[in-house]
Amino acid sequence: MAKKKQFVEKVTAMEDDFAKWYTDVVKQADLVDYGSVRGTMIIRPYGYAIWENIRDVLDEKIKATGHENMYFPLFIPENLLQKEKDHIEGFAPEVAWVTHGGDEQLQERLVVRPTSEVLFAEHYSKIIHSYRDLPKLYNQWSNVVRWEKTTRPFLRSLEFLWQEGHTCHATNKEAAVETDQMLNLYADVCEKYLAMPVIRGKKTNKEKFAGAKYTLTIESLMHDGKALQAGTSHHLGTGFAESFNIRYTDEQGESQPVHQTSWGITTRLIGALIMVHGDNRGLVIPPKIAPTQVMVIPVAQHKEGVLDKAYAIKDQLANVARVDIDASDKMPGWKFNEYEMKGVPLRVEIGPKDIEKGQAVIVRRDTSEKYFVVLDTLENAVKELLEEIQEDLLKKARNHREQKTSIAMNMKEFKEVLETNPGFIQAMWCGDQGCEDKIKEETTATSRCIPLEQKDVSDTCVCCGNPATDMVYWAKAY
Amino acid sequence: MAKKKQFVEKVTAMEDDFAKWYTDVVKQADLVDYGSVRGTMIIRPYGYAIWENIRDVLDEKIKATGHENMYFPLFIPENLLQKEKDHIEGFAPEVAWVTHGGDEQLQERLVVRPTSEVLFAEHYSKIIHSYRDLPKLYNQWSNVVRWEKTTRPFLRSLEFLWQEGHTCHATNKEAAVETDQMLNLYADVCEKYLAMPVIRGKKTNKEKFAGAKYTLTIESLMHDGKALQAGTSHHLGTGFAESFNIRYTDEQGESQPVHQTSWGITTRLIGALIMVHGDNRGLVIPPKIAPTQVMVIPVAQHKEGVLDKAYAIKDQLANVARVDIDASDKMPGWKFNEYEMKGVPLRVEIGPKDIEKGQAVIVRRDTSEKYFVVLDTLENAVKELLEEIQEDLLKKARNHREQKTSIAMNMKEFKEVLETNPGFIQAMWCGDQGCEDKIKEETTATSRCIPLEQKDVSDTCVCCGNPATDMVYWAKAY
Repeated sequence: MAKKKQFVEKVTAMEDDFAKWYTDVVKQADLVDYGSVRGTMIIRPYGYAIWENIRDVLDEKIKATGHENMYFPLFIPENLLQKEKDHIEGFAPEVAWVTHGGDEQLQERLVVRPTSEVLFAEHYSKIIHSYRDLPKLYNQWSNVVRWEKTTRPFLRSLEFLWQEGHTCHATNKEAAVETDQMLNLYADVCEKYLAMPVIRGKKTNKEKFAGAKYTLTIESLMHDGKALQAGTSHHLGTGFAESFNIRYTDEQGESQPVHQTSWGITTRLIGALIMVHGDNRGLVIPPKIAPTQVMVIPVAQHKEGVLDKAYAIKDQLANVARVDIDASDKMPGWKFNEYEMKGVPLRVEIGPKDIEKGQAVIVRRDTSEKYFVVLDTLENAVKELLEEIQEDLLKKARNHREQKTSIAMNMKEFKEVLETNPGFIQAMWCGDQGCEDKIKEETTATSRCIPLEQKDVSDTCVCCGNPATDMVYWAKAY
Repeated sequence: MAKKKQFVEKVTAMEDDFAKWYTDVVKQADLVDYGSVRGTMIIRPYGYAIWENIRDVLDEKIKATGHENMYFPLFIPENLLQKEKDHIEGFAPEVAWVTHGGDEQLQERLVVRPTSEVLFAEHYSKIIHSYRDLPKLYNQWSNVVRWEKTTRPFLRSLEFLWQEGHTCHATNKEAAVETDQMLNLYADVCEKYLAMPVIRGKKTNKEKFAGAKYTLTIESLMHDGKALQAGTSHHLGTGFAESFNIRYTDEQGESQPVHQTSWGITTRLIGALIMVHGDNRGLVIPPKIAPTQVMVIPVAQHKEGVLDKAYAIKDQLANVARVDIDASDKMPGWKFNEYEMKGVPLRVEIGPKDIEKGQAVIVRRDTSEKYFVVLDTLENAVKELLEEIQEDLLKKARNHREQKTSIAMNMKEFKEVLETNPGFIQAMWCGDQGCEDKIKEETTATSRCIPLEQKDVSDTCVCCGNPATDMVYWAKAY
């Protein structure tokens, strides 16, 4: 087992250096490579296959709720981005500028889209005239660019992939219902497919999207106790409608501004996935989005009948799972490590002794449990185990979050908890941005959200002691 | 029928002005809108749904032939693009340059990818070491930017969507096999799904891809007799491998350069689709890639039972087709025109009299033929008609191409044919670029390809009269 040890040692233990563990894993599991432009990433086939699975699940649900996909240009003229004041203020510092096309200097600089609200808004102002044209429920899958100073693969990069939904509604209420619906849809995908529990809540004004009336968010907790914003859904109110003159004639013949929403999730989710489920042997991928759910590994494959049997098992399992086989001439131990690193939920070992006994060995990636299974019952066993793993991962992540969620009544407790059990802190807030700023300054923790499910922790603000309005989740965050 | 006339008049007749007909149709059928940056397009939901169907078909076939999807960054550092001399010469005049990020001027300018050969090449040089690492079969779905002077939706735009495959092989032969395979795959998709016949051939040196050893192409003929390059597959030889030092150790322990290919198809195919099948009433979409294959339209829908029956038919047909219903309060005549404009292959009309007779009326978009079908047999009828339409469209396009393919023995005939029956011209060529240039100068027709299926038209070059080496397809082209 010398080989095994050597391989495992390539990954820093997460207890020693979580950040290093993370970058080791994304590299070792062949998820990404660094691009030649600072802060960009090459999403390698294994990483992209995970993204495709997340995308397919989400795309189906986005369409099932009546949304249509479309595609807007990559470039935004400078004057268009400037039409909505809050929006440009929020994004101007972090955009990439195109100034030349071919040999010519452009008369007007172009922004490489950091998000597409203004493009959708301009289009909507042209195609919406009457209440009959509403609602408009559009979505786009694309790349976006944000000129970030500090970057990490998946978590924060100059360019990332995402979907951005943009909708127009006749009333404020309808837009609010849509904002809720999409947040719930994201939460569902996170919990049921990524096995990643999330807190649903509202961002404070300080943390909301530039140009939004309010922002809903789902927040998840990583293994190291830091929070990660996994998706956001914005009620845009009539801000863009006023700036871009998106108006419709209602049933009474009156001209009205539309009410808008926008919402998005990104390749960041892959980073979350790694940090919620991964361990010191590498990735752990929930079965529902695993590119390969079962890896068949022949043992002593030079012996007669082993390879044939291994291929037969692969074919047998193809009915119930995404299954693959590694019949290369590498050592079985090397293969075990490789697919553990890649987080394949189950591996099936088959060797001469197993064949004699009419069995195969199934090993779970998440718990390392071993099962000796009669060959005839392999399909059922695999099916059940995949379901069990999916559920167990969610439970485990939920338990972890509960253990790492604390209550703080005052700043002393707040700071202590951040030292002793870093994670989510539930604490009351007066609603004053001054207190929010102060907490960030003193602790580097930020307000993650005002959860939809409130809990009455106390009556007074954790920071200033004045009467509190809301319980807030606080945490250090990615 | 006053409404109908008014509607139809919005589209210029293709006989009067083909270019105007084209732009009328792409707008009227809600395929695109113009972006706010010159030469860019907004792909609207209906256009994007067609692209999704083409993409899904192609993606499945690309994966089935062993390729893996991945994603490279949008930006290419200037020095990287310059590493392959032919490549940079070909692309430099038509790239967009990013010079600023946030408030800072960049130390090195970045190119917005016009194609990703150099990014793949740099990555391959890092991950390929041994013959065991080969072949590498990668593909990417993405947007690319080319700073074109004259633009038209789908056909030529500053930004378009595409897939670009990039592969590495141990030998020249393997790369050649791959180049052929991907061209054939493209041809198959065009013929079997888009019902668009194509000529398979090789580009002349003048027309080949910048940096390629040779370029294979599929060429299709539009309704107006102009040709359109529908897809290309390049054998890159070892050019990029030498410039980027992509080498592997072979089984004998010798260091060797890899042999590469790249191949792509783009949203251009939608333009081709329009110009191959469309008519003066709008689009005609082949059933296999039509977002909606059957549109159910209730007639006199205020009468009791009509709407219920229409919905029942929709449900019934959902087993055999992508079916939708238009139950809006617009007039049936308006709806007929709308879905003819959008090229929906079949419409099913159902009114009180039909219900009495236990029938529905099916109307074919391509031929306007009407069928009165007993309700119980509707599923079969629809299934058969969709298959028939798919075949008929291909046949019709093939006939059209044959009628528009002429032979020219000398320049006089060449010029005459371009006047009397514009289309493909089969003519012999001596292999000299001087003749190719002269033909273009005198006629604006270009060499489309040296077809794989050669035909011995004569022994002498159509231009100079010297001994000929190949029969070439010539045409004016998009």
